[in-house]
Amino acid sequence: MYTPLHGGMLELYRRLDALFAGWAGECGAEEYLFPAYLPAQALARLNYFESFPHLATFPVALDSDPSNLRQFAAGNASLEDGTLRLARLAPAREVLTPAACYHFYHTLQGLRASAPLHLTTRATCFRREAHYVPMERQWSFSMREIVCIGTAAEVKDFLERMQRKAAAFLERIKLPVRWQAATDPFFDPSRSARYLAQRLDPVKTEMVLNGRLAIGSVNFHRSYFGEAFDLQRDGAPASSGCIAFGLERWVQAVCSAYGAQPGDWPLP
Amino acid sequence: MYTPLHGGMLELYRRLDALFAGWAGECGAEEYLFPAYLPAQALARLNYFESFPHLATFPVALDSDPSNLRQFAAGNASLEDGTLRLARLAPAREVLTPAACYHFYHTLQGLRASAPLHLTTRATCFRREAHYVPMERQWSFSMREIVCIGTAAEVKDFLERMQRKAAAFLERIKLPVRWQAATDPFFDPSRSARYLAQRLDPVKTEMVLNGRLAIGSVNFHRSYFGEAFDLQRDGAPASSGCIAFGLERWVQAVCSAYGAQPGDWPLP
Repeated sequence: MYTPLHGGMLELYRRLDALFAGWAGECGAEEYLFPAYLPAQALARLNYFESFPHLATFPVALDSDPSNLRQFAAGNASLEDGTLRLARLAPAREVLTPAACYHFYHTLQGLRASAPLHLTTRATCFRREAHYVPMERQWSFSMREIVCIGTAAEVKDFLERMQRKAAAFLERIKLPVRWQAATDPFFDPSRSARYLAQRLDPVKTEMVLNGRLAIGSVNFHRSYFGEAFDLQRDGAPASSGCIAFGLERWVQAVCSAYGAQPGDWPLP
Repeated sequence: MYTPLHGGMLELYRRLDALFAGWAGECGAEEYLFPAYLPAQALARLNYFESFPHLATFPVALDSDPSNLRQFAAGNASLEDGTLRLARLAPAREVLTPAACYHFYHTLQGLRASAPLHLTTRATCFRREAHYVPMERQWSFSMREIVCIGTAAEVKDFLERMQRKAAAFLERIKLPVRWQAATDPFFDPSRSARYLAQRLDPVKTEMVLNGRLAIGSVNFHRSYFGEAFDLQRDGAPASSGCIAFGLERWVQAVCSAYGAQPGDWPLP
């Protein structure tokens, strides 16, 4: 599960990302580059640890006491089986980015907006899975997101425009993708009010390739993040929504359909 | 310690990185994009855990047993003090990238080269420190590296050309940088043969800004990585070397000297 990109695959990755970033630019979205992690406290506001403990990856360091470090050093000299014998850890306060757009709600905490905001970022995300497949189901992968924060109507309008744009592009390049309603992968769905709400009124639509792999999604969050992070649009909790693209999966999809030669890719 | 980049600062970050990537292009360096982590086993080959246990950050997930996840979920609902109460962890087998160029030696393991190789990458690196300062001393930061793998003479020639190029640029933009011999920050220097070797015959030269902050470095590794990863150049262990740029520190340096207006930056 270690897939460096270079040559044609890296070029394809960049051209796809530039295409999506271009769509962001057409909305006037401002680009951000975020750290690799979020404060755990920000995710606690979203009940993240109750909803998705199985997906989370934490960046942890060792307790810096010299005798602890020495013990660790002595215990991990050869590492025959590849598994680290971790010593005592320093307090853990962060989570490696689970989804690119979380950074915006945390960063913009306390927002008082009088117009819709459009934003974009590409982030390295971590999502622990039961099994991994290179380019398809990676522990760590790249996600490009375009986000709108505004009134419910503004966000819905943004998501419709984005979905039309993505659908037209998918049709033009003839990828076997269907749009399907989906839910987030909750840990304990039957106990989750949010899961039940998502089942009753779907807010997530995935671009499903070959009937089995989501290469992107359109998500309406209602005012969930607006309430959790005190984001207001004209005095009321803001709504938000995003379109997200899993870049490695897109690279794989275009490459499977058109091969590895840049001249053969139906991209701008 | 959470510094998103956007607007002018993001533009400056990109223009500086494009400048260094351009220098890589002039050497014919191929660009790679790597995962956020390395297998711990690769770093064990470098005695990394004995040399730098105090710097390492590990990406860890919870043991996926449902009762373990439920216990974690219950213990981290509110997180008043911001510190996670981690439950039982899954086996840890990876380390978040400590330095961009390590990826190359690991990826190219078993290389049999008959000409020098030039390579480049930008990676998000993690380095734990005793204290942090935004843009200056971050837990996680961006490193652009240009690497040469070849004979000792080829690598030295490459490093000299790169150092001349960087020195000429630093002089042209009038940053108060001095080149200073340095050593890697070993955990227990007096016990480390590698540290003593570095003291006797310096292999690291840093670009030190204002007498206190290294914004980049030129490093000659001799055949250290060539031997550890079985990289050969014409039948002998290859030498390697790199020039590395800490992008956030460069952004800060240019911005301190020339302000935040793109028109005022002395960049191509």
